[in-house]
Amino acid sequence: MARFEAEYVLETAWTLEKAAAVIAGEQSSGTFRPVPGETEELKARSAARVEALEDLGPITSPSLPGAAAGPLRRARLVLSWPVANTGISLPNVLATVAGNLFELNCVAGLRLVDLRFPAEFVAGCARPAFGIEGTRALSGVVGRPLIGTIIKPSIGLSAEETAAMVDMLCAAGIDFIKDDELQADGAVCPFEDRVRAVMPVIRAHAERSGKTVMYAFNLTGEVDEMRARHDLVLREGGTCVMASANSVGLTGLLALRRHAQLPIHLHRNGWGYLSRHPALGFDYAAWSKLCRLAGADHMHVNGLRNKFCEADESVIASARSLLAPLSEGAAATVMPVFASGQTALQAFDTWAALRRPDLIFAAGGGIMGHPDGPAAGVRSLRDAWDSAMAGLTLEEAVRDSVALKAALRSYG
Amino acid sequence: MARFEAEYVLETAWTLEKAAAVIAGEQSSGTFRPVPGETEELKARSAARVEALEDLGPITSPSLPGAAAGPLRRARLVLSWPVANTGISLPNVLATVAGNLFELNCVAGLRLVDLRFPAEFVAGCARPAFGIEGTRALSGVVGRPLIGTIIKPSIGLSAEETAAMVDMLCAAGIDFIKDDELQADGAVCPFEDRVRAVMPVIRAHAERSGKTVMYAFNLTGEVDEMRARHDLVLREGGTCVMASANSVGLTGLLALRRHAQLPIHLHRNGWGYLSRHPALGFDYAAWSKLCRLAGADHMHVNGLRNKFCEADESVIASARSLLAPLSEGAAATVMPVFASGQTALQAFDTWAALRRPDLIFAAGGGIMGHPDGPAAGVRSLRDAWDSAMAGLTLEEAVRDSVALKAALRSYG
Repeated sequence: MARFEAEYVLETAWTLEKAAAVIAGEQSSGTFRPVPGETEELKARSAARVEALEDLGPITSPSLPGAAAGPLRRARLVLSWPVANTGISLPNVLATVAGNLFELNCVAGLRLVDLRFPAEFVAGCARPAFGIEGTRALSGVVGRPLIGTIIKPSIGLSAEETAAMVDMLCAAGIDFIKDDELQADGAVCPFEDRVRAVMPVIRAHAERSGKTVMYAFNLTGEVDEMRARHDLVLREGGTCVMASANSVGLTGLLALRRHAQLPIHLHRNGWGYLSRHPALGFDYAAWSKLCRLAGADHMHVNGLRNKFCEADESVIASARSLLAPLSEGAAATVMPVFASGQTALQAFDTWAALRRPDLIFAAGGGIMGHPDGPAAGVRSLRDAWDSAMAGLTLEEAVRDSVALKAALRSYG
Repeated sequence: MARFEAEYVLETAWTLEKAAAVIAGEQSSGTFRPVPGETEELKARSAARVEALEDLGPITSPSLPGAAAGPLRRARLVLSWPVANTGISLPNVLATVAGNLFELNCVAGLRLVDLRFPAEFVAGCARPAFGIEGTRALSGVVGRPLIGTIIKPSIGLSAEETAAMVDMLCAAGIDFIKDDELQADGAVCPFEDRVRAVMPVIRAHAERSGKTVMYAFNLTGEVDEMRARHDLVLREGGTCVMASANSVGLTGLLALRRHAQLPIHLHRNGWGYLSRHPALGFDYAAWSKLCRLAGADHMHVNGLRNKFCEADESVIASARSLLAPLSEGAAATVMPVFASGQTALQAFDTWAALRRPDLIFAAGGGIMGHPDGPAAGVRSLRDAWDSAMAGLTLEEAVRDSVALKAALRSYG
């Protein structure tokens, strides 16, 4: 029978074998006190199995308080479950792989670092309807990253002020614009007003230029609200909607995916509480797979030299994970979104690390703060990416680009 | 204008005032680099405000890695936002109070410890449709805790085996039964089969005894699945449905609440990854308020001397928070569910700490593992609670209760 796997890094003062067995039991057919119903037959059909348990050596102190005391070890633990336990149900997979186990007595640290699903599970999931190819088709951007930005200030602009900014950004040659995750349907800029103010600007620009700028409208809310908002965006000729993953949950995301006819731009705000402590919570590769299977088309990965405290290697590992196929038949790859303090300068390093043009590169100050204005800001990002992909160094590239030269002077 | 508030415990190497201002800015109208649109007028209508900032003194090392270096301090920080920023929208409140801030460079530790909402916000939320009174009305249990249990093994029993266990538990005098959070709609025990097997047993018992045992069927899944499953439970005469909070998310919970005509038993599995590190994530009082406002009727709080690593004081603080009104006009109190290694012995301490009978007291081994069988197990729990509430000590209580005496011998 097909099984799915979860890989953890575990810290424990128990013997590794005992801790692994307790975690596997807790998350399947095991019980705290043995009960009569727990037969061998039942265990054979439903028990989680320890697939791998690799001792990573002793550690000096527990990462998390409250655990059973004693000399500690760290281990890589792989568990598997029959798909029959959960069915092809991502909300129930989450309760299985990341349920009541982080607070177990034997756990002094536990991090879910990866998930692996059999091909038939992947095939049965909603998965991205657009992904990289669909996003390229709708945006008309081929062979290079989409250059994007976020409306700032995050919140406080009226619908008309937002539309005026969109007008300027369209004129500047932008490919992609998004709402901030704080901007959904507040009183100052109601969702409907925003769409009705922004879309005529985008349509007018498309008529003039032939280019439909992709705007990710943040429709985060209740299911019926999200559906109605999506329909409004679609009617108005919009090409993208955005939701906050941790606000809507897997069930909310799936509801949006089942309804949507537009790419879903998934924001990861709150990711810090899921990941900031290295011995607790989730690696991005594990968490993001659930979102990919649920149907996200774009996912945020932060950016190099960002304003947060995430290391560059972590950012690149996240982006790589999104671009790695989930199974042979169904890749479910999604477009990584780089953002946070990004300018033309990071383009070279991002390309060098990733060697893929399939991403959204979102800059705020890197566009609006360019000394020669937003058009030069967009130009500097375009030139940076074109040059990087052509194998030029930053030093070589600035010779041919006034915009890039000015960016380097300003941000370098 | 009405505002909602979030209270945090912050660790930072920055000056407290600067860190507070950056967090407030990041979560409202502030930007990394100043932009022209950030006017005084805009800030006045949309900026988060620092309402309190209390220095809690120096700390020796950062709780979380990656933060800006320097001498560290801990502080209590209260921020407020205009309701106009989010509207009465819990998913958007979550993105605001717990969005991109845990990973900020200035944050060496950040925990959301409480949330406070103005009365009109509370009044505008879905809130529990049943809560304590509605649960008592449906279960017929008045003036004492509901004595409950969880079907074990958690997963692996067939629908018929589950029904047989329910039959035994009904005969034993139980008030409440729930599915395990791992048991939703797997191949071995499909949801529909389970409901169709269990409900005739519960109805037959009700016909004999006049008592409808409340069974919380775990319908965790996609929105349409949850609605259909709820309707099946309702048609079959069931009185409760259950969902995993972190699997369905706030949007999923709200979708269930908008549809449901039965109490929602909300499971918190995964709570460990949200809370286990004391300087990261959420206090239960803060997180649970979002679930209460979204419409949960029962919420898990662990139990005294549980098998996890949560301290008893934390368990009691959680339960107390659920029983504290959210506003004068709309209490939105929910029934705390005590579970995990609970027996008759914990009843006395739980009563002493809480002094409220409004809870579900769920025991597994404490019922099924009682030396004289499940009926004596239920009896021991009933007697323990009756005695405790009558002011007797455990020693006094065992004189009058054979079941309790046997429980004490077995678990004491």
